[in-house]
This record gives sequence, C-alpha cells and structure tokens, in this order.
Amino acid sequence: MIELFKSIQLDKESKTSLYLQLFNCLKELIQDGTLPPDLKLPSVRKLSEALKINQITVVSAFKQLEKEGFAYSKPGSGTYVANSLQAVPESLPTTFLDELYQNDDISVINNDRIKISDQTINFASATPTSDLFPVKDFKLVLNEVLDRDKGSAFGYQDSQGFYPLRESIAEILKRSSIHCNPENIQIISGAQQGIDIISKAFLSQGDYVITESPTYTGAIAVFKSRGAQIADVQMEKDGLNLNILEYTLQKFKPKLIYTIPSFQNPTGCSYSNYKRAEIVRLAEKYGAYIIEDDYVSDLDFENRGFSPLKALDFNHRVIYIKSFSKIFMPGLRLGFMIVPQKLKQQTIEAKHTTDISTSGLTQRAFDLYIREGYWDQHFNFMFDIYKERYFETIHALDGHLPKEVTYSKPGGGLNIWLDMPYGFPVNNLLKHASSNDVVFAPGRIFYSGNCPQSINNIRLSFAAVYTDQIKCGVEKLCAMIASLLDGKDLYQSIRIL
Amino acid sequence: MIELFKSIQLDKESKTSLYLQLFNCLKELIQDGTLPPDLKLPSVRKLSEALKINQITVVSAFKQLEKEGFAYSKPGSGTYVANSLQAVPESLPTTFLDELYQNDDISVINNDRIKISDQTINFASATPTSDLFPVKDFKLVLNEVLDRDKGSAFGYQDSQGFYPLRESIAEILKRSSIHCNPENIQIISGAQQGIDIISKAFLSQGDYVITESPTYTGAIAVFKSRGAQIADVQMEKDGLNLNILEYTLQKFKPKLIYTIPSFQNPTGCSYSNYKRAEIVRLAEKYGAYIIEDDYVSDLDFENRGFSPLKALDFNHRVIYIKSFSKIFMPGLRLGFMIVPQKLKQQTIEAKHTTDISTSGLTQRAFDLYIREGYWDQHFNFMFDIYKERYFETIHALDGHLPKEVTYSKPGGGLNIWLDMPYGFPVNNLLKHASSNDVVFAPGRIFYSGNCPQSINNIRLSFAAVYTDQIKCGVEKLCAMIASLLDGKDLYQSIRIL
Repeated sequence: MIELFKSIQLDKESKTSLYLQLFNCLKELIQDGTLPPDLKLPSVRKLSEALKINQITVVSAFKQLEKEGFAYSKPGSGTYVANSLQAVPESLPTTFLDELYQNDDISVINNDRIKISDQTINFASATPTSDLFPVKDFKLVLNEVLDRDKGSAFGYQDSQGFYPLRESIAEILKRSSIHCNPENIQIISGAQQGIDIISKAFLSQGDYVITESPTYTGAIAVFKSRGAQIADVQMEKDGLNLNILEYTLQKFKPKLIYTIPSFQNPTGCSYSNYKRAEIVRLAEKYGAYIIEDDYVSDLDFENRGFSPLKALDFNHRVIYIKSFSKIFMPGLRLGFMIVPQKLKQQTIEAKHTTDISTSGLTQRAFDLYIREGYWDQHFNFMFDIYKERYFETIHALDGHLPKEVTYSKPGGGLNIWLDMPYGFPVNNLLKHASSNDVVFAPGRIFYSGNCPQSINNIRLSFAAVYTDQIKCGVEKLCAMIASLLDGKDLYQSIRIL
Repeated sequence: MIELFKSIQLDKESKTSLYLQLFNCLKELIQDGTLPPDLKLPSVRKLSEALKINQITVVSAFKQLEKEGFAYSKPGSGTYVANSLQAVPESLPTTFLDELYQNDDISVINNDRIKISDQTINFASATPTSDLFPVKDFKLVLNEVLDRDKGSAFGYQDSQGFYPLRESIAEILKRSSIHCNPENIQIISGAQQGIDIISKAFLSQGDYVITESPTYTGAIAVFKSRGAQIADVQMEKDGLNLNILEYTLQKFKPKLIYTIPSFQNPTGCSYSNYKRAEIVRLAEKYGAYIIEDDYVSDLDFENRGFSPLKALDFNHRVIYIKSFSKIFMPGLRLGFMIVPQKLKQQTIEAKHTTDISTSGLTQRAFDLYIREGYWDQHFNFMFDIYKERYFETIHALDGHLPKEVTYSKPGGGLNIWLDMPYGFPVNNLLKHASSNDVVFAPGRIFYSGNCPQSINNIRLSFAAVYTDQIKCGVEKLCAMIASLLDGKDLYQSIRIL
C-alpha cells in the first residue's frame, strides 16, 4: 500500500508549496478512483518518511483534503478517503457554502456562479423576510423607552442583562413548562453568542464536545475555535442514537453535549420523549452539561407538544439557549440563556469578557414589547404564516417529489430534509437550480468533517418563501431532480470533477 | 527553608479542602511576616513532596494566594510572596475590585461595605454620566432610519458591518491622519469585543501577548481566556521601556502587543513620538502585531498632537481599535477596528463566530448621526466638558495634594494617576473615603498579577464627576490622605488585616 504513495513525485524546487503539491497528487488519486472511498490513508509519520518530507507538510495536505471534502478524519484513528461525489467541485468554492450556511441567509452571498436575484425562490434561508418584521410596533416601544428612560437607556448595562426583561422572559417561559428564576437568565446578543460564551466559560483546548451529526455548523465553528474536539453522534429520526451517545460519553468524557432537540437544524427531526429523558439522564451520569439550542420548538404546527429538555432538568445539567431571530428580528441580536446556578458566575464573567453587555436600548425596548402584549400578537402572526408555508411545502412535495427521494414530515420548525438517492449529484443540482432561480442548502455543509458517503441530503427551508411561490419553487426543483435522476450522463460527469 | 514549610499541619479529615487549608497557612505566614515580600516560594513539586499532598493541591493554593494578592508568579521562574500591604483585606473582596474595574462604573457595585449613593463623588468611573448622552438627537436619527429602512434595519447584517457606516468612519479618521479604506474597517460591539475577536482569530493556547503594566484588565481577561501567556512590560512616563520590550519580543516571540499609546488607562501616560515609531518598528522586526486601543486619544486638552500608531503603520502591523463608549453612549455597544488586509478574512470569520454581526439598527442610526453632523457637535460638547473637568481636577490637586504624593499631568484623557508613598494603605483609604462619599480606583487592580511592591497608586477619573463637585471631592480625599500619612497607627493596622 505504502508503495503506491512512494511513487508520488514532489518538486522541492517548485514555487508551489510542498503541501499543495501533495494535496493535488492525493486529490487526483482520489478523483480517478485509485484511492477508493473509506480507504484509510497512511499515517502522517509513515507518509512523511516514505516521501522524505516534514510531518507538518503531510498534516497540512490532509487538512486541505478534509477542508475540500476529499477526506475525513476519525478522532484517534486516522484520515480516510471521502466519497468523491461529496467533494466540492472547484466551481463551487467551500467559502460559498460556508457563507450560505453560516449566515443562514443566502442574500449575503457574493458569488457570481450562484445567481441570486429578486426573482430567486430562496429555500436556503431559514430566516424570515424583512417585510414580516413588526417595525411599526417596535418603533412605538423604542420611542416609549427613550421618553421613559432617557440617558439611562444608554449607560453601561448589567452584564447579566436588564432585570425587568429577565422577569418578562421568565414569565413567557412558563408556557413551555420551564419554571425559572430571573436570577438564572442571562441575556445574550443572539444564540450564536450564547454558544460562544458557554464555550469560553467551560471549554479548554482538547476538551471534547458531543454534537449531533448533522448539526448547526455555527456551533461547531465555536467549539473548534476553543480548540475543542468534536465527537459527533449520528442523528436519528427520534434523536441521537443512545448507544453511540453513551459509548461516546464513556470514551471521551465530553464537557458538553450540544443538541437541538425539537425540529432540529437541519434535519427537522425531534427527540422522542424517551430520548429526551435519556439524554438528560446520561448527561448527569457522565458529568456532562447539555446545551439545549431551542431553535424553533414553538413552531409546533401539528401539536406534537414536545417538552424542552430544560423542563426535565431536575438536576441542573441543561443550559438552555433561545434566540429571537427566527420569530422576531435577527438584526436586533437578542436572545437569552438559562444557566444552572452553579455555572452562573462563570457565565457572567465570560459575557463580560466578550462584550461587557448586550445593548441596553434593545433590551429595554424588547421588554416593553413583551409587557405591552406585542410579542404574543406577533408570535401568533408569525406562527400562522409559517404554518401556512409549512403545509404548502409539504403539499407541493407530496405532489411532485420523485419517488426515489424520501423525507419525514417534521411537523414543525422551518426545515425539511430530503433524502436523495445514493450518489445523487447535489452540487450539480444546486448549480442548475440557481441558474433557474431556485436555491436550497446542500446537506453536506451541516457535517463537521466526515460526512458519511451514504448520506446525501438537501435542506429546504420555507421561512423566506412567500406561500404563493412555494408551489412553483417546489415544482421546478422536483422537475430538475427528476431530470437528473433520469440523465445518467450527469452522474457520470461527477467522476471527472 | 523547606523545613519551615514541613511544619505546616494539614488535616486530611477536615471538611475544609486541603488546598484551602494550605492557602490559609501560607497566608498567615505571609501576613505575620515569616515569609517576607519577594521571597520565592518552594516549587510545587518540592512542597507537595514535603507535605505529602498532591501537586494540584499546591497549585490551587498558590493560585488562590495570587488571586487574593498575597503572591505573584514570574513565568518560567516560580511563585513569590507579594508585598502584603498590597494584599486585599477580607473586608474588601476581590470581586468588588474586579467589578469596579471591569465595568469601569462603580454604580454597578453591590457591596455593603463600600457605600455608593447619589451623594458619592465618583472618581472611580471613567464613563460619562447619562445626563450627557445626546438622547434627543439620537432619537431623531433612530426614527429617521426606521422610516427610511423599515424591516431591512432588522435583518441579518453583514458581519463586517454596515457599509455606509464604514464609509462615514473612514471619513472621520482622516482627521487623525489615518487614511484607510472602508474595506478594512470591521464594526464591533464595543472595544472589549474587538479585543476578544482579535484574540479568537490570532491567539492559541500558550501564545504570548505583551501588555503594558499596568493596563486595562479587561484585555488581560480576554488573553487569559484564550490560554495565552501574558508578558507584561513596565509602562514608563513616555511609553513602554524599549529595552525590556525588545528583550521580551526576542525571548517570548509574542503574537500580539496590546497598547494604549495615548492617555493610557490607567496611568494617563502617552508615548513619545520616538517610542511610537520604535514600537511599530520592533513589532515589524519580530513579526508581532500591535493592538492599538485608542481609548481617548482625541481628548487632547493641551494640544500635544500625538499621532496614532496606525498613522505610522506603513507595513501593516497595527490593528487599531476604537470604542465610542467614552464620548458617546457606552450602552449602545458600538466601536470599530481597522484590520490589515492580510488579517481581514480571519477577523470577519471570528466576528461571525462571536455574534454574527453587530445590531443593524444601531449601525444605521449611528451612521446617520455622523452624516447629519450630530457627531461633530456632540464630540465638541463632550470635549469642552471633559476639558473643564480636567483642569478643575488638576487645579484642585495642585492646591491640596500632600507633598508626599506625586503625579504627572497627562495633558488629556480621563484619568490621573497618583503615586502614593511606599507602603501607603490604599485599601484603607478607599474604605475610609467611601464612608465619606468619595470613591476612586486603587491602582493595584490594573496589574495582571505581579504588582511590584514599590508601586502604590490611585486612579482618579473625572469623567463622571460634575465640575462643581470636583474641588470638594479632591479636597476631602487629600485631607484623608494627609491624615493617613500622619497617623502611623493606620500603617500599623495593615499588618494585622
């Protein structure tokens, strides 16, 4: 086996750095099939000895392979060849996909290959369009706050957050069966900051974090930035695989488990009641804390009535994070966390180090917005709109989706996760679709590195698509999928990407 | 020497943890003078062997000693006894001082031993009082933005910041001889976040950062949170000691140098033109980047005309951070950085991971505030107020400060740094003063750990004190200082704290 690698020719005189030369050679071997999917690559040490190059050079080449989707690594095992069908073709740079994913808003993408225009039917963004924002009402409360609080709305605020807002939030939470004290609520500038603060407070280099696979990559970016190791556990239709979860807890002793238990992003799956209780029990047993990212549990269109993990958290292992971005206005940058008493002081300190406090004006205005009843009114308005869009999407999919493609109805949330057949060229579909004014998020971008070759998905979000466009968008997309399923030539073309 | 330590009796059956027992024993030995200032404590290994306890126990006890000011550590050398005069007496918890310092606003302190009331003359806060905030004008622009941009003011914003605001800022910067492209401006939620983002983007565990000593502890908290090592270099009247700076650059190869070159916090010192040029040259020579925290360089009351380091940065080694909190409104959480092109992408990604973006509404309103001329108007208003307070403070000090206490006139900024005579009981003064409705910041809190025993300072900030209160406050404080200098009994009492 190592003989094959010994034949690799690197030119030390070349202007191209050695690691890039090695990367290119390996990439070619993967693309032409010489190195088949799931083959374990030689160890860094062996390859560096065989090629008489520095180990760092090999590590860099492997990392580049991973970054571009040609390889994946298993912690403690090594680097493996990925399914090249999953690899990102050069015409679709990773950065495009990262941005698409991270901003959760395709409008920010500046990429001439993926055309986005006013005509584009955008199934990629899970964020409401700005015409739905309650600007008039919010303007009213803003002015009321300015007249009421004057300068004190603009002084340094308590790092934990404006107390009356914490009271208002504690009140709202009772509806989700969460009974908490305002003393345990920490105001944050959006869910992303919540994940960042928790990581800063509790993760050190080398600590393990369990994540669902696939999951919100914005969380993974934070954990990696703290130097943490990701141990991802496969997401099933009713939540994490419990056997693998327990094995991973035993083996890696992670500090944190990051989960989105209801209408998960991206899969739309929700944990069963049994798995909800079990994940809390296991966290306790193995001394881990759970970050419960409550993305959109309140968008429960089919009345499944899930209980948040926080409501089952009798032994204080759950850190509950909630953003207002999906229901309210993402640009306000506002959210909150419920933090167990034991972790509270560290959390406040990490928030202070991060940005001292969240904008006092925003906190005061949002507090008044809740107290004057606008929040309930707006929530109901958004719920009805999203619900209509959800059923419209489901209806259109049921009518037009080729039988080779399957999905489970999530019953709520903002995303639908399509299972494409093995080897389906998702990236080609995306390029093709975007030229025809439809975009979506390819499933691959929600994996932290080692996207299993058997997985091949598409995330359709209906948050940003008007109800009367949904049918047309889904029909166009289904037609393109059908034509790709028919045209074997497109399958073939992937081998030479 | 080790014999002395062997006599320490620890009770393994006690409910008090071993490390706390050890901490208490060592603390007593330090307080009763058995262990004199600057004595090197035995190594962790030796002490753990002598006492037959775990090394972790010793490390924890040493850390607690450091935290409470009884010891300090020198990287690579060991732990030393601090001057116990500097140690925090139990009646003044560290958390009080941390909060005092970190929030830069004594009003947030909830501590029954330090009395703060409406009558308190507050020389501890370097933040303007809220009656100076331009609420009326800001309300006008807020409403203008809401009418103009409607929902788009509340959508996800570009992580780098609202482009028109970046243009407005680039325009303002020309007055400080900084010519930069809006493309290199990164909007942040205050200076604290800027330091956090840069650390996230460029520091890994174990990297070194050079800081001034003393300095803004909020910066040190960030660097430590990234697992970085602090190499602090003594601040002199005209900037960092260049010999020590170069030695430290050579020895530790730091990634970053954190500096406040004009009207430094807390010392009020400003770098000479020579040292400004030299620090940039040395950063370049040794491959470090400089974080220039431009705290209040524009409050130049005596027309010293300092040039920002960024204006001398021909080889792109300076990351310039500017907050609007001292001139404008701290609770808005708004600031910006200028980032060298080479570092730009990593910075945007770190900002994204941190909180996706700064509030879009705030950015849009502040942009209009600048464009409609309010900013210039408000800046001039604040400049005149601060200038009046500055000269009033200087005048009062010159008339009443006991001759044993010295200081240098900073010529601008918001802080005056008093040098107290060796052994002066600053903490006793603070307790005494706060019972008499005057507070200030003890200098010790601005050191990252090893506050030299010869240093004994007080920071007086005049940002939050009305001009007509300054004379009274300074007179009261000076009288208390004089009485402490006379009454030797107070000196004595420190030994038994």
